[in-house]
Amino acid sequence: MQRIFEIDPWKVITHTFDQKSKRLQESMTSIGNEYMGMRGMFEEQYSGDTHKGIYLGGVWFPDKTRVGWWKNGYPEYFGKVINAVDFVSLDIKLNGQSIDLAKDKFSDFELCLDMKTGILSRKFVIQRADCQVAVTAQRFVSIAQKQLYANHLEFKNLSAQPVSLEIDSKIDADVFNEDANYDEQFWLVQAKRSDLTSGVLVAKTKPNNFGTPEFTTEMQMSHQTSLQAVPAVESEKAVVNRFIGKLMPQTDKAFEKRVIVTTSRDYATSMAMDQATQQLTDQILQKSFVELKAAQETAWAKRWEMSDVAIQGDVAAQQGIRFNLFQLFSTYYGEDARLNIGPKGFTGEKYGGATYWDTEAFAVPLYLALADPQVTHNLLEYRYKQLPGAYHNAQQQGLKGALFPMVTFNGIECHNEWEITFEEIHRNGTIAYAIFNYTRYTGDHEYETHEGFNVLTGIARFWADRVHYSKRKQCYMIHGVTGPNEYENNVNNNWYTNLLAKWVLNYTNQVAQRVDPTKLKELNLTDQERRKWHEIADNMYLPADKELGIFVQNDDYLDKDLTLVKDLPQDQLPLNQHWSWDRILRSPYIKQADVLQGIYYFIDDFTQEQKERNFDFYEPLTVHESSLSPSIHAILAADLHKEAKAVEMYQRTARLDLDNYNNDTKDGLHITSMTGSWLAIVQGFAGMRVRQGKLHFDPFTPKNWDGYRFHVNFRGRLLKVTVNKQATKIELLKGEPITIELHDRQVALTLKEAK
Amino acid sequence: MQRIFEIDPWKVITHTFDQKSKRLQESMTSIGNEYMGMRGMFEEQYSGDTHKGIYLGGVWFPDKTRVGWWKNGYPEYFGKVINAVDFVSLDIKLNGQSIDLAKDKFSDFELCLDMKTGILSRKFVIQRADCQVAVTAQRFVSIAQKQLYANHLEFKNLSAQPVSLEIDSKIDADVFNEDANYDEQFWLVQAKRSDLTSGVLVAKTKPNNFGTPEFTTEMQMSHQTSLQAVPAVESEKAVVNRFIGKLMPQTDKAFEKRVIVTTSRDYATSMAMDQATQQLTDQILQKSFVELKAAQETAWAKRWEMSDVAIQGDVAAQQGIRFNLFQLFSTYYGEDARLNIGPKGFTGEKYGGATYWDTEAFAVPLYLALADPQVTHNLLEYRYKQLPGAYHNAQQQGLKGALFPMVTFNGIECHNEWEITFEEIHRNGTIAYAIFNYTRYTGDHEYETHEGFNVLTGIARFWADRVHYSKRKQCYMIHGVTGPNEYENNVNNNWYTNLLAKWVLNYTNQVAQRVDPTKLKELNLTDQERRKWHEIADNMYLPADKELGIFVQNDDYLDKDLTLVKDLPQDQLPLNQHWSWDRILRSPYIKQADVLQGIYYFIDDFTQEQKERNFDFYEPLTVHESSLSPSIHAILAADLHKEAKAVEMYQRTARLDLDNYNNDTKDGLHITSMTGSWLAIVQGFAGMRVRQGKLHFDPFTPKNWDGYRFHVNFRGRLLKVTVNKQATKIELLKGEPITIELHDRQVALTLKEAK
Repeated sequence: MQRIFEIDPWKVITHTFDQKSKRLQESMTSIGNEYMGMRGMFEEQYSGDTHKGIYLGGVWFPDKTRVGWWKNGYPEYFGKVINAVDFVSLDIKLNGQSIDLAKDKFSDFELCLDMKTGILSRKFVIQRADCQVAVTAQRFVSIAQKQLYANHLEFKNLSAQPVSLEIDSKIDADVFNEDANYDEQFWLVQAKRSDLTSGVLVAKTKPNNFGTPEFTTEMQMSHQTSLQAVPAVESEKAVVNRFIGKLMPQTDKAFEKRVIVTTSRDYATSMAMDQATQQLTDQILQKSFVELKAAQETAWAKRWEMSDVAIQGDVAAQQGIRFNLFQLFSTYYGEDARLNIGPKGFTGEKYGGATYWDTEAFAVPLYLALADPQVTHNLLEYRYKQLPGAYHNAQQQGLKGALFPMVTFNGIECHNEWEITFEEIHRNGTIAYAIFNYTRYTGDHEYETHEGFNVLTGIARFWADRVHYSKRKQCYMIHGVTGPNEYENNVNNNWYTNLLAKWVLNYTNQVAQRVDPTKLKELNLTDQERRKWHEIADNMYLPADKELGIFVQNDDYLDKDLTLVKDLPQDQLPLNQHWSWDRILRSPYIKQADVLQGIYYFIDDFTQEQKERNFDFYEPLTVHESSLSPSIHAILAADLHKEAKAVEMYQRTARLDLDNYNNDTKDGLHITSMTGSWLAIVQGFAGMRVRQGKLHFDPFTPKNWDGYRFHVNFRGRLLKVTVNKQATKIELLKGEPITIELHDRQVALTLKEAK
Repeated sequence: MQRIFEIDPWKVITHTFDQKSKRLQESMTSIGNEYMGMRGMFEEQYSGDTHKGIYLGGVWFPDKTRVGWWKNGYPEYFGKVINAVDFVSLDIKLNGQSIDLAKDKFSDFELCLDMKTGILSRKFVIQRADCQVAVTAQRFVSIAQKQLYANHLEFKNLSAQPVSLEIDSKIDADVFNEDANYDEQFWLVQAKRSDLTSGVLVAKTKPNNFGTPEFTTEMQMSHQTSLQAVPAVESEKAVVNRFIGKLMPQTDKAFEKRVIVTTSRDYATSMAMDQATQQLTDQILQKSFVELKAAQETAWAKRWEMSDVAIQGDVAAQQGIRFNLFQLFSTYYGEDARLNIGPKGFTGEKYGGATYWDTEAFAVPLYLALADPQVTHNLLEYRYKQLPGAYHNAQQQGLKGALFPMVTFNGIECHNEWEITFEEIHRNGTIAYAIFNYTRYTGDHEYETHEGFNVLTGIARFWADRVHYSKRKQCYMIHGVTGPNEYENNVNNNWYTNLLAKWVLNYTNQVAQRVDPTKLKELNLTDQERRKWHEIADNMYLPADKELGIFVQNDDYLDKDLTLVKDLPQDQLPLNQHWSWDRILRSPYIKQADVLQGIYYFIDDFTQEQKERNFDFYEPLTVHESSLSPSIHAILAADLHKEAKAVEMYQRTARLDLDNYNNDTKDGLHITSMTGSWLAIVQGFAGMRVRQGKLHFDPFTPKNWDGYRFHVNFRGRLLKVTVNKQATKIELLKGEPITIELHDRQVALTLKEAK
């Protein structure tokens, strides 16, 4: 645990700057608007260790990096998020010497990400022998105008002498990825032009041999300042504008950079992109920085109005949930149906690709409750559109049906570790589960029986081909998988995977009864095939241990040395930073909910005793080293009225990055798991479920909280739920009257205004 | 199967040239002398698909190529064989146009690798409108003078008009590896100098961040020809000598290139290397090509005298065994104790590193019988010298003791697939077994109780830490391994691995009784630790199935779909070219002997029924897609008097590359498995064993052979064994009288001359 920012309900703020924590600071102060985003690196030169990262949604490169012994079915390329052309960097000189907080003496430092508005600001006073200058900087990527990045700086001379100020403002294609092997670069400059106060750079991703799209990006910078524009020396890969001026004692000067970023994802031709870029630049130039900022503030206020979770009596927890929602919405707010929710968002490069099962498993429930149903519908459609890729993936493995990828940009598997891509196939169950979840929550069967049914059929066909029949044990088995617990690889009969496979076959068969016969025909789905699905589902092996009364995570698991986590030397944790991969794989330690993930999905289908026995067996063996782990445990613990455990788990998920729990936040934030704190509060503490089309709550208030309040959208209604130790109040803020269940009581809700 | 060369007892010869098989042709006509070697690419320009490959023993590069998600314990670099500076290429022009067999019309083609002498020769007649020229080329790397490459060409003008001839002879550092990801290059030119008829190029491997050695190589070329030397245009990375002349009708001209290749492996300073290179060049210039060739022929004749296996009545089989011995000795003949036996030798780049467990498992028994004991001793010493690396490898995995690497140049693991490097730990058992095997064969306990005991102790300590105790099953287990059958990964309780671990603990304990007490002290080996080894060995889990009467390959294996190989659609074979890795891993199909490898190692410790039951169960599930597979099966089949099966297996190993059985010989030859045909004849057909210090034979003659004859060295004696359908004759050619066993009869042998 490492906390470098102060506790504050709405701000990520610090008044100290530690060079050793620079990357962590950068991750924590990332900003984004779904379309683009960036880490919190300083605008000006910084000679210390730093990770400059700017990323554009949907822009990637298929990297050929073969090592080891290639085998049939391996994905041809490793799809990676690439660092965008750098439109942020400035070089700011005072009396001819660059400001560089790694070298300069400075005072009055403040760094603040305002989560209410999405504006990142910074203040410091440069203390040099020849000058003393106060600098303030603000920047944001606009959620009101997605192509806009705005950066405003002020310089105040606190010295008795005049100070010369010189700023080089750049758009620079000379960028690298952190994970490059040979310092390879991905952007080729296509065009550059500049005048004294503005510049344009067009760059294209270098050609690739895999037939995936090449991307072009155009960036136009413009400036507002009373400094004087003078000719600048440009390099081959950058456009530069230079501004100079004299800061008289006790006076200040402002400098503002605006950049419009467009990409070929939105424009069919370079001419159209040129025109749009110019037009957007013209538009924003008609507005002041204050106006641009106001639009940003208004847009964020609207988001918070719908989604804010208020916690009384625990500011740290309050900051945690807001930070998570802020970063999640900065990554994805459902505005571009071609995008998805990358696990690192715009905060780092780790994990390569854009889309993981995290979306369906952890993000869908949140977006269902906090956004218009169309947003979740878009997430489902995203997979439907990638169904041809999923068929391709299954075919690559010699299997029928559709296998949705573990990591992808385009539907084709683009990660390269067989134990993940070939074996972590439980993801395919979760793609189906999200359709079920959407349908259950919205009550809308339209998707499930149309596009959704194509997806379900593809997935069911995959499972029906992926099982094998064991003559010895007289049942269907699934060998060679990796469960959600990635601390085991290539196991046999992972209970969770087998459960999901069985469930998909049954669910698809059920939905088949409701779809139009022409759809069955179109999909060539015969009664014979459906009977086979039944037979497999009915005879699926689900490992269990009678003596212990538990489901068994996978074959041989109980043969391990089952020392509990609490009995390990605590300096060995987190295991993934202290143990070799070999040792981890052989250990019984569970990275994230595995059997318990299955119990979570179908929580109403198990007896309290089943849930309790499994929780009590597996949780003490779980190290929660995936950021996706604590939330599921919080929900189950709450369900089992283990309130202390639920709160402990909530605390790990809520401030995972704020407190750098897993000691890896410097690589970027754990975006998709940021849904976890919301799930823990709403599905955990408040016990929200949907049962037979009815919303159900069973809330409690954690001991150290006074109370909490949240909103949910449900079937055209907006509900406000207020919980404290005395009572739970549920109000209908919008929509038709509705009856919900509270602690097994039926409560009829009508609009207050209607009363 | 694809046979592109003719059947011949001593030659790899063809009179046709098919561009589509160029790479296969190149692999098959590789030559080497342990110090250096090369594929059979043409000297002159060739614009078609080709794989130029020249390699220097012990010269490599640590490549940083990270993809996927790095985990603790992963090797830092991927060690790879790098293509050497090209000293072979010529550009030969007739009337100003380069000879290029991909484009030129030609006749009378012959390509011949003479295995008796190690000389590669080629003939063809260029048929152009403006000329008709017969070309002959011969080349070899000398086993009499390891630094020497010699290339002799003759050109005869068959036309009625004069033909102009121009030859550019090069040393060129502008080379790439086949497996490069980004066309990265590894050689930096350090120095170049040339006069009209000779040239020198010094190149150094580029710096690396891993602290492994950088290598410098110096190459000096000289020429003998009546052609006229003229100034040549040189490029930045190459030295070139140009020769021109006029070929009058019906006359010929000869051209000869000699290259001396030295490396920093042999010289401490560049000055010493310079001097040596010049001195060696001066020496060879005093000899004619005929003399240089004669030395080569004499040296090979000596090797064959000791090792030739003669087969009567089957020329294809005869060619097979000679090809294998020829290529094996071209790769390694025990002359440099710092080298080992790479699985592709000098014939390709696949598999990266230099040293595999193949050496101990498959090559040691052959070198024990065919070479001076010192050669095998060197192979053992090689591991002893790398013991610190083995301790490092174990430590990387958080384990005690020593783990010898799967792939290495320097003792440090340098391959990068966890399922291989972390899990295929059975190799550690074989390193110990080789010590046992050497001791059993030679009767010399010196190594076993001195350096060898350090190795054994390191390995025993590794196993003692790598096991875990299963409370549930009340025994020691080894989870998370990959057995010799690499078609399963990350399995639990691989019988072979567990057997070897148990055996190592017992063997080390036995040897401990014989070593000097000071050695025990030096190794800090206490009675307590030795008791622990006993306890583990006594309680090691060795999976078995009583009903089937077999040892079980690993946990869960019998749950698979156990369809036999013969019942698979035959167009699916080889599986590794038709099935995805996922499908292969889940299948029951065995790549190479696994349980049967264990039975082979300890063949006298099992009952005939045990051997038979296991062979009959596992062989029908084995696809033999490792080149290391058929030989072990041939030996066991012979042991079980399944003669037809033994012969079938022999045929797969003997002509594996000659007939391109696995359809991958274009990537290079299967060098280490070339021991297999010899093992199949000697340990299989002839039933050679060492029992209680006595050599034992139990020979039979395959049906379609008339007979066979081979030599073995054993404890200072040279024996000649002649087998045919009537009788077996064993003669003592050298050494003291000895008693051997033939079909359970004691036979006293004395020197013929002594009679």
